[in-house]
Amino acid sequence: MSGMKRTTEKNLMVFSGRAHPALADEVADLMGTELVPTSAYEFANSEIYVRYEESVRGSDAFVIQSHTAPVNEWIMEHLIMVDALKRASAKRITVVLPFYGYARQDKKHRGREPISARLMADLFKTAGADRLIAVDLHADQIQGFFDGPVDHLMAMPILADYVKEKYGDQRLAVVSPDAGRIKVAERWSARLGGVPLAFIHKTRREDRPNETVANRVVGKVEGRICILTDDMIDTGGTIVKAADALMADGAAGVIIAATHAILSDPAVDRLKNSPATEVVVTNTLPIAPECHFDKLTVLSIAPLISRAIKEVFEDGSVTSMFDGHA
Amino acid sequence: MSGMKRTTEKNLMVFSGRAHPALADEVADLMGTELVPTSAYEFANSEIYVRYEESVRGSDAFVIQSHTAPVNEWIMEHLIMVDALKRASAKRITVVLPFYGYARQDKKHRGREPISARLMADLFKTAGADRLIAVDLHADQIQGFFDGPVDHLMAMPILADYVKEKYGDQRLAVVSPDAGRIKVAERWSARLGGVPLAFIHKTRREDRPNETVANRVVGKVEGRICILTDDMIDTGGTIVKAADALMADGAAGVIIAATHAILSDPAVDRLKNSPATEVVVTNTLPIAPECHFDKLTVLSIAPLISRAIKEVFEDGSVTSMFDGHA
Amino acid sequence: MSGMKRTTEKNLMVFSGRAHPALADEVADLMGTELVPTSAYEFANSEIYVRYEESVRGSDAFVIQSHTAPVNEWIMEHLIMVDALKRASAKRITVVLPFYGYARQDKKHRGREPISARLMADLFKTAGADRLIAVDLHADQIQGFFDGPVDHLMAMPILADYVKEKYGDQRLAVVSPDAGRIKVAERWSARLGGVPLAFIHKTRREDRPNETVANRVVGKVEGRICILTDDMIDTGGTIVKAADALMADGAAGVIIAATHAILSDPAVDRLKNSPATEVVVTNTLPIAPECHFDKLTVLSIAPLISRAIKEVFEDGSVTSMFDGHA
Amino acid sequence: MSGMKRTTEKNLMVFSGRAHPALADEVADLMGTELVPTSAYEFANSEIYVRYEESVRGSDAFVIQSHTAPVNEWIMEHLIMVDALKRASAKRITVVLPFYGYARQDKKHRGREPISARLMADLFKTAGADRLIAVDLHADQIQGFFDGPVDHLMAMPILADYVKEKYGDQRLAVVSPDAGRIKVAERWSARLGGVPLAFIHKTRREDRPNETVANRVVGKVEGRICILTDDMIDTGGTIVKAADALMADGAAGVIIAATHAILSDPAVDRLKNSPATEVVVTNTLPIAPECHFDKLTVLSIAPLISRAIKEVFEDGSVTSMFDGHA
Amino acid sequence: MSGMKRTTEKNLMVFSGRAHPALADEVADLMGTELVPTSAYEFANSEIYVRYEESVRGSDAFVIQSHTAPVNEWIMEHLIMVDALKRASAKRITVVLPFYGYARQDKKHRGREPISARLMADLFKTAGADRLIAVDLHADQIQGFFDGPVDHLMAMPILADYVKEKYGDQRLAVVSPDAGRIKVAERWSARLGGVPLAFIHKTRREDRPNETVANRVVGKVEGRICILTDDMIDTGGTIVKAADALMADGAAGVIIAATHAILSDPAVDRLKNSPATEVVVTNTLPIAPECHFDKLTVLSIAPLISRAIKEVFEDGSVTSMFDGHA
Amino acid sequence: MSGMKRTTEKNLMVFSGRAHPALADEVADLMGTELVPTSAYEFANSEIYVRYEESVRGSDAFVIQSHTAPVNEWIMEHLIMVDALKRASAKRITVVLPFYGYARQDKKHRGREPISARLMADLFKTAGADRLIAVDLHADQIQGFFDGPVDHLMAMPILADYVKEKYGDQRLAVVSPDAGRIKVAERWSARLGGVPLAFIHKTRREDRPNETVANRVVGKVEGRICILTDDMIDTGGTIVKAADALMADGAAGVIIAATHAILSDPAVDRLKNSPATEVVVTNTLPIAPECHFDKLTVLSIAPLISRAIKEVFEDGSVTSMFDGHA
Repeated sequence: MSGMKRTTEKNLMVFSGRAHPALADEVADLMGTELVPTSAYEFANSEIYVRYEESVRGSDAFVIQSHTAPVNEWIMEHLIMVDALKRASAKRITVVLPFYGYARQDKKHRGREPISARLMADLFKTAGADRLIAVDLHADQIQGFFDGPVDHLMAMPILADYVKEKYGDQRLAVVSPDAGRIKVAERWSARLGGVPLAFIHKTRREDRPNETVANRVVGKVEGRICILTDDMIDTGGTIVKAADALMADGAAGVIIAATHAILSDPAVDRLKNSPATEVVVTNTLPIAPECHFDKLTVLSIAPLISRAIKEVFEDGSVTSMFDGHA
Repeated sequence: MSGMKRTTEKNLMVFSGRAHPALADEVADLMGTELVPTSAYEFANSEIYVRYEESVRGSDAFVIQSHTAPVNEWIMEHLIMVDALKRASAKRITVVLPFYGYARQDKKHRGREPISARLMADLFKTAGADRLIAVDLHADQIQGFFDGPVDHLMAMPILADYVKEKYGDQRLAVVSPDAGRIKVAERWSARLGGVPLAFIHKTRREDRPNETVANRVVGKVEGRICILTDDMIDTGGTIVKAADALMADGAAGVIIAATHAILSDPAVDRLKNSPATEVVVTNTLPIAPECHFDKLTVLSIAPLISRAIKEVFEDGSVTSMFDGHA
Repeated sequence: MSGMKRTTEKNLMVFSGRAHPALADEVADLMGTELVPTSAYEFANSEIYVRYEESVRGSDAFVIQSHTAPVNEWIMEHLIMVDALKRASAKRITVVLPFYGYARQDKKHRGREPISARLMADLFKTAGADRLIAVDLHADQIQGFFDGPVDHLMAMPILADYVKEKYGDQRLAVVSPDAGRIKVAERWSARLGGVPLAFIHKTRREDRPNETVANRVVGKVEGRICILTDDMIDTGGTIVKAADALMADGAAGVIIAATHAILSDPAVDRLKNSPATEVVVTNTLPIAPECHFDKLTVLSIAPLISRAIKEVFEDGSVTSMFDGHA
Repeated sequence: MSGMKRTTEKNLMVFSGRAHPALADEVADLMGTELVPTSAYEFANSEIYVRYEESVRGSDAFVIQSHTAPVNEWIMEHLIMVDALKRASAKRITVVLPFYGYARQDKKHRGREPISARLMADLFKTAGADRLIAVDLHADQIQGFFDGPVDHLMAMPILADYVKEKYGDQRLAVVSPDAGRIKVAERWSARLGGVPLAFIHKTRREDRPNETVANRVVGKVEGRICILTDDMIDTGGTIVKAADALMADGAAGVIIAATHAILSDPAVDRLKNSPATEVVVTNTLPIAPECHFDKLTVLSIAPLISRAIKEVFEDGSVTSMFDGHA
Repeated sequence: MSGMKRTTEKNLMVFSGRAHPALADEVADLMGTELVPTSAYEFANSEIYVRYEESVRGSDAFVIQSHTAPVNEWIMEHLIMVDALKRASAKRITVVLPFYGYARQDKKHRGREPISARLMADLFKTAGADRLIAVDLHADQIQGFFDGPVDHLMAMPILADYVKEKYGDQRLAVVSPDAGRIKVAERWSARLGGVPLAFIHKTRREDRPNETVANRVVGKVEGRICILTDDMIDTGGTIVKAADALMADGAAGVIIAATHAILSDPAVDRLKNSPATEVVVTNTLPIAPECHFDKLTVLSIAPLISRAIKEVFEDGSVTSMFDGHA
Repeated sequence: MSGMKRTTEKNLMVFSGRAHPALADEVADLMGTELVPTSAYEFANSEIYVRYEESVRGSDAFVIQSHTAPVNEWIMEHLIMVDALKRASAKRITVVLPFYGYARQDKKHRGREPISARLMADLFKTAGADRLIAVDLHADQIQGFFDGPVDHLMAMPILADYVKEKYGDQRLAVVSPDAGRIKVAERWSARLGGVPLAFIHKTRREDRPNETVANRVVGKVEGRICILTDDMIDTGGTIVKAADALMADGAAGVIIAATHAILSDPAVDRLKNSPATEVVVTNTLPIAPECHFDKLTVLSIAPLISRAIKEVFEDGSVTSMFDGHA
C-alpha cells in the first residue's frame, strides 16, 4: 500500500509588526507563548524588509499589527509579513487588527472617492490572509468587505464595565458626539441599564441658515453625568466640542470613552482643556509617553485579543465571548 | 498589412425582469427606447427560463429588476438574466437595482449569521455583472460590497422637494424612527433648511428595567409637523409606533416619507390607522392596487434611473446629478 | 521556542435547509449524529434569515438541501447557509444536493439562453462551497461545471436491484423515453443482465411531414415488461406518452423507474391513469402526502448519502461504493 | 478641460498556429484579410517559441488552432499564442477551435479521472482567452465549461445538405453508432425531413451473458440507405462495426457522415474496407495526403468559421446562422 | 427595434500622485494635455485621502506615481488612486511606474522572505490596474509578475547616446559594479559599438579566505574611461567602491550612468568624493535640490514616457520605440 | 451535542508521470514508500488519459514530473494529473519539478513574445496546484511567478562538493559561459573557497565591428583548471565554445558542471569532442543510454528531492537544508 500516514498537529505562532510591539508581547504573554523572532527594518530608500528567524511551515499564524501613524508604513509591513508567511508555507494566516487603518473611508461620501476600507480588505486577501480579527470596526459593515471569516471583537464591555463600576451610582446619560454613531451609544445605554440617550447635531441655526454652525444637543442631559462615547478619538475636535455643548446644556459632568486612542495632534491639548473629567480608552493603538495625561485612563485590550486567538486556534467560539452580541 | 478596421459603436439595450415591468417600461420610455423583448417563465417545478428575442452581442446592457417579494424568485431571475447576457456576448452588463434585496443583512448582528448583502454583490459579480446602479442602499457601505463601480442614487431630493413644497411654510422637525438611521434624517434636515432633528429611542424605563419597552422621543417635537423619514417601510411597525410616540409628545402632525414601499402585511392597515396624514414613497418597488390608500402619495423614481443610465452610457457624470453628494 | 502545538481534530457537522428535512434527519440518524440546530425563517418581505445555534468553527460541514419547488427559495437558502458557514469559520464546506436545481439547463439549446446549471455551480463556489455531493445529475458533464471535487452518487443500483428482485424472472426490456438519455438505459440493461434496449423517438410521420407528431418506439418491446427509466419525473407527460406507445407496440406491461420524483402537476394524475403498473422512485425530493398513490413505491436514498458523507469525512473512497462506476 | 478624445476603432486580426494552417488561410481569405505573420518554432528541447511580427495592440484577435495530433503540442502552442497576445495588449482574444482537444474527457467515467475538457477551458481562460468559437463539441455541455461566451457552430447543416442533395430521393434511415449520441442523429433525422432513426447497442446476448459482445441494431433499417452519423471518426472501429451490423440487418447501403476526421491509424484501412460507400467529413482537422481515399468526401468548414468571426467582430448574430438552433 | 447606438470615443486622462508631480506635469505637457485636477492629502492620523475633481467615467486613465521615499506612502496613494478610478468607472487603468518600488525584492534570497516585487504587482491588480508601464525594472522577469500587459521602457538609449556623444571618441570600457547585472552592461557595450566589458567581483582573497573582502576587477580596464553602469544608485556604496577599484586598476577615468537616482543618504557625499568625473542619471525619481551637485547630469525621461502613453492610447507599438529590443 | 469528532491524519502520497519514472522511483524509495499506481497512456489521437488505481482522498499529494522532451506532452500530463487529484479530493497538491519547462522564456526578450514561464506557473495553479518544489530555476525570480509557496532546491552543493573533493587541490577558476549567469558562478566561487571568477563575453571585435563574433574571456584563467558552470546544458553550443575560448586563453583544463542535462542533439558529440575532461550533471532529467559517454558523471538529485518532500510533509524546514541559502 502506497502512502505514509502521520497524525496532524497544528502549531500556533504569533507574529508582530513594529507598530505596537508592546501590545503583541502582552497578547503572547497571556497565551503563554512568545512572539516569533522576526527581522524587520527599512532599507535606505524606505522600502521595508522582513524575514522570520524560525521555520513557520505549517503554522497557524496570527499576525498582529495596529495601524497607527505612519499608517501606510505599517499597513505595508503588515502586507509584506503576510506575503512572507504565505510563501514560507504557513497553513493558515489570521491578520489581527487592533486598529483597522482606513476604516473611516468605508463608503463614497462623494463621487470619485475610493472606498479605502474595502481596498485594505482586498489587499490583505491578495497578500494571503485567510481570516481577520478586528476590534471595534468603524462600521459593522466592514466585516462584509473581507471575503472570509472576520471575528469582530468589542471593547465596549471592558470600557462600560469600568465606567459602571466607577460612576454607576450617579445619574448618567449616554451621548453620541455624532448623528451617525448613536447605535453604539444605544448599546452602551443597554449595558449601563437603560440610561437615557442623547446626541449632538451639528447644524446651522434655522433662522439664519447661512451664518454659523452650532452643536445642538438632541436629548435631555441636564443634571446628568454624560458618558460621551465614540469608537475613536483622532484630533479630538468633535468630541471636545460635544463635551462643551453638553456642559452648556446643563450636564453635571462629562466622561469620554472610546476604544481607539489615535490622539493626533492637538487631541491631547484639547482633551486636557476640555470639561471632561476622565478620558477612558484602550491600548489598541500605542500611546506615546508624551500623550499620557492625568485624566487619561488606558485599559488593556490584550486579554480580549489573546482570548479570541485562543478560541480561533482551538476551534472554540468567539461569539460566546460576547454573550450573543456579534 | 493584416487586419480589418471598423469604427466602434456602442449600443445601449435595456432589459427588465418580471418583478416590476411598469417601472422598467417607464425608464425605457423616458430614454426614448424600448425594453428588449425577452421570454421568461417558470417550468412546472418552478425553475426559471429566460431567453432574449434579439441579438444582444456587443451591447451595453442595463438589466433592471426590483427585488420585491417573492425576493428569491426575482433575484434568481436577475442572476440568470445576467448569465444569459454574459454568454450571449454583451459587452458590458450593468445591474440596475431600484431595490437591493437583502440589503438589511449587511453585517453579522450576532455570530453565525450570513452577510447576505455581501453575498448578493458577489453572486451578481459571479453571474457576470460589471457594475451596479442602486437606489438608496440601506447602508452606504454596501457600495463597498461590490467589486466594481456602483452608482448610488438618492431619492431624498425627490421626496424632500415634494415635502418642502407642500409643507415648507410650517414649523417642521425631521425625525428618525431608529437610532441607527439619524444620518439620513440629518441630510433631510439640511435639505429642508436646517430644521431640528429628533429620533426615537426604543428602551426600557430606567427605573423599572425589567418591565416594558417604551418608544422615547429624543429631541424636541412639540408643536411641529414631524417628517418621519426612513429608507423603507416594511411592515410599518416601527414607523407607526414612532408616529404615535411623536403625537404623544405633542407633535402638531406627522408626515411619513420613505424611498422603498415594501408594504408587507399589515403595513397598509397600520399606516391607514396611524396619526400620519400623508405617506410619501417612490415606486422603486411595485405597489399592488390593494396597497394604495388615500393618504399614500407615490412619486416616480424613473426619471432618476433613466438619467443615471444615460449618464453611464454616455460617459457623463452621475455625481453631478446630486450636486456633489455621493 | 515559539509556538504552541496541538493535535488536530476534525468535527463532522450535518446541516439541513428547510426544503426536505425528513431526508436530512434520516441521513444524520444513519450516521449516529443529529442535525445542527439552525434558525431559519422568512422576513415579512420574503427575505430568508439563517443562523446556527451552535459554534461551527473548524467543522467539516455538510449542508443538505434538495432543490424542490419553490426552487429559487431553497437554492437561495442553501447559498445563504453556505455563506454563514464560511463567515463562521467552518473548515470545509460540502454542499449536498440530493436534487440539483436547474440541472436541465445544462447547455444553450438556442442562442441567448443562460446555462443555469453552470451558474448554480459558480454561485455555490462563490458562496463558499469547497465540494459537492450530488445524486444522479441530469448530465454527467455537470460534474465539470464545479471548480472542485464532485462526488456523483447513482441511485440506479438501488432502483435496479429492487426491479430485478421483483420482476427479474420475467421477459424484460429497458426503454428510454427520450433519445438523449439512452446511455442511462444502457447502464440499466447491463445491471439487469443484458436485457434489450429501446427508446422512444418523437417525430413526424415520414409520409405526412406537416401533420402530426408521433411517439415511435425504436427497438423491440413486444411481449416484454418494459422498464421505462429516466432520471426524473416532472410533469410526467413524456414518460406517460412513452408508456402508452409501448403498450400500443405490444409491450406486456410497463414499470416506470426514476430517481427524482418532482411530480409537478399533473404528474400524479397522469401516472395514476397510465398503463404503468408500478412507479418506483427515491426520496431525493420530498413527496407531498397528496402525491402518494397506490402504485408509487418510494425507496430511500438516505443510506447512499450517509455512506458517501462518511467516506468523505473519513478520507475513504466514494468510488468504491459503485464498484468502479463513476 | 483635461483629457484627449479620439474615436475608437476596432481592428480584427486573425492568427493561426501551426496545426492546420490551410484552414486558417482559407478562413482569412474568405474574410478578405490575411493571417498575421507569426514566428513559431521549437527549440532543441521541444519547447515552443512564438512571436508576432506586427503590432497587435488593441486588436480584436481571433486565434485559430485545430487540436490535431500531436494534440498536446498544438494545445500548448495555442495557449502560448494567447499569452503572447494578452501581454502584447490585444483588446479581446477569441480562441477558435475547429476541433476542441480532450472534448471526450468531459466527465469522470470512473473515479479518480480528470475532466480534461473542463481543464482545457480553464487553461485557455487563464492564458487570457475572453471567448471561444468551437465546432461540434463532443457534448453540448462543454459550452458551460468555459467561463465566458462560447459560440458553438454546427457542421450538420453542411453535411446533411450534401447528403440530402445526393441521396435525398432514396429511402433513408439515420443511425447513431452509439447509444449516447442519438440526440445528434435525431437532429439529422429532422433536417432530412423526418427519416427513421436507429442506433447500435453494444451488448452481450441475453441468453448467453458471459459469451460475446454483439452490435445489435435497435430500430428498423432493412432496405434503407443508412446515414451513420457521429461527431468524429477516430480509429473508426465503432463506426465500421456499426456499418457491418447495419448491412447484416439488411440495410441497402451505408453512408458515413461526421464532422471531425481524426482518422487515427487504422481508420483509413477500416473505412476503405467497410461496406460504407461514401464517407463525408469536413476539414476541421487536417487530413494527411495518405489519408485521402476514393470514397472520402471532404467539405470545407471555412465558410462557417469565417462567417462566425465576421458576426462576432461586427456584433451581429451567430445564432441567426442556424435559424434558431444553438 | 430596441437599443440606442452611439459611436464610441476614448478619452485619455493623465493622473499624478504627489510623489513626483514635476515629471507628470512634463509628461502631460509633452502630450498637449493637463493632469486631471485631484485632491490628495493626509488626515491627521496619516491616512491618505484622494478625490478627482472631474468626471473620469469611461476614461483611458494613466496614473503616474514614482515610488520615491517615503515609498510606502506613495505606493499606498497610488493604490488608492487606482481604486478611486475603478469605482468611478474609468474604462481602462494603466499604472505608470517611472520607478517600481520594491523591485529589488524580486526573489527569496533566503528562506522566509517575502517576494515584495510580486506582491506589489498583485496589489495593483487587486486595486484595479489593467496594465503597467515601467522604466528599467531591476530584473526583466518582473514583467512576468503582473497578470496583464506590461510595457517595459528602457532609459539606456537616452543615457548611452548622451555618453557616446560626449565620450565616444575616447577609449572606453563598460563596467558592471556587480556580477548579477552584467547583462545590462552588455547592452551598453553593444550600443557603444562593442567596447570591452568588465565587472567587479566582491570576494575574499583566495589565499586568506577568512580575512577581508576585496573588490576585484574582472576584465581589463587599464587606460580606459570606464562607464560604470547600473539600473539605480541608492546609497552609492557599491558603485563608488567600484569606481575606486577601477582607478586602482589603472582606469583612465570613471563615468557613472544609471537610470534611477534614488540617492539615499550618504550617496551624494560619496559620489561627490568619488573618482567619477560625471554622474549621469534620469529624472524617474525626484531629485531634491540639496542632492544636486556639480558633476551630476540629469536627463529627462518624460519624452520616453509620454511617447509610450501615446502609443498605448492610439494602439500603436511600444516595441517599435526600441527597434526590436523588448 | 451535534457533530462527530475524529483525530486528523495526513497521508503522504507520491505520484509520477511517465517522463522520468526512474527518478520518481528513487525518490519514493528513499522515503520508504512507493509510487501510487497510476494508469496513463495516449489515445489514438495522442490525447493523454490518466487514472489513479487507489483512493487519493484527503492525501498530501506530491506529483513528480520532469519536463524533458517532448516537453509539451509531459507538461500536459502533469496538468491532467493535478486536475485528477483535485477532483479526487486530494487535500494538498504539491507539484514537483526537477526540471521546470519553459523556464528560459522568463521575460519578453522582444515585444509580442509570451512569458511562458509565468504561463506555466498559472496553468499549474489553475489545474489545482497548491505549491511547487523546483530545482535550480533558470532565474530565481520564477519563484515569484507562482501564486503560492515555492521551495527552490539547489543542486550546486552536490555538484560543487563533488568538484571540490576531486579537484580541490588544484588551482581553480570558476567561469560563467554567459554574462547573464555570473551570479551562479559567484556562488560556486564562494563554495569553493573564493576562487577567481571569469566569464565569456560574446562580442564583435572593437576594431572591426561588422565582421565576426568572438568569445572573449573576461577575467584571468591562465594556468587554472576552469570550472565552467551553468544551470543547464541544452545543445551544448555555448558551453563548448566557452571551453574552447578558455583553452585558447591558456587555461590548464576545463571541467563542465551543470544541474540539468537536457543534452539535445548535438550536445553529446560536442561535449565528447570538447577540451573538457569531465562533464558533471545531475539526473533531474532522464539521460538516454545513447547520451552517456565516458567523461560524463551523473550525480543523483533524488536525495535532495526526497528530503525536501519529507520536510514539507512534516512541516520541517527546507531552508535549513541549505544553511540559510534560499
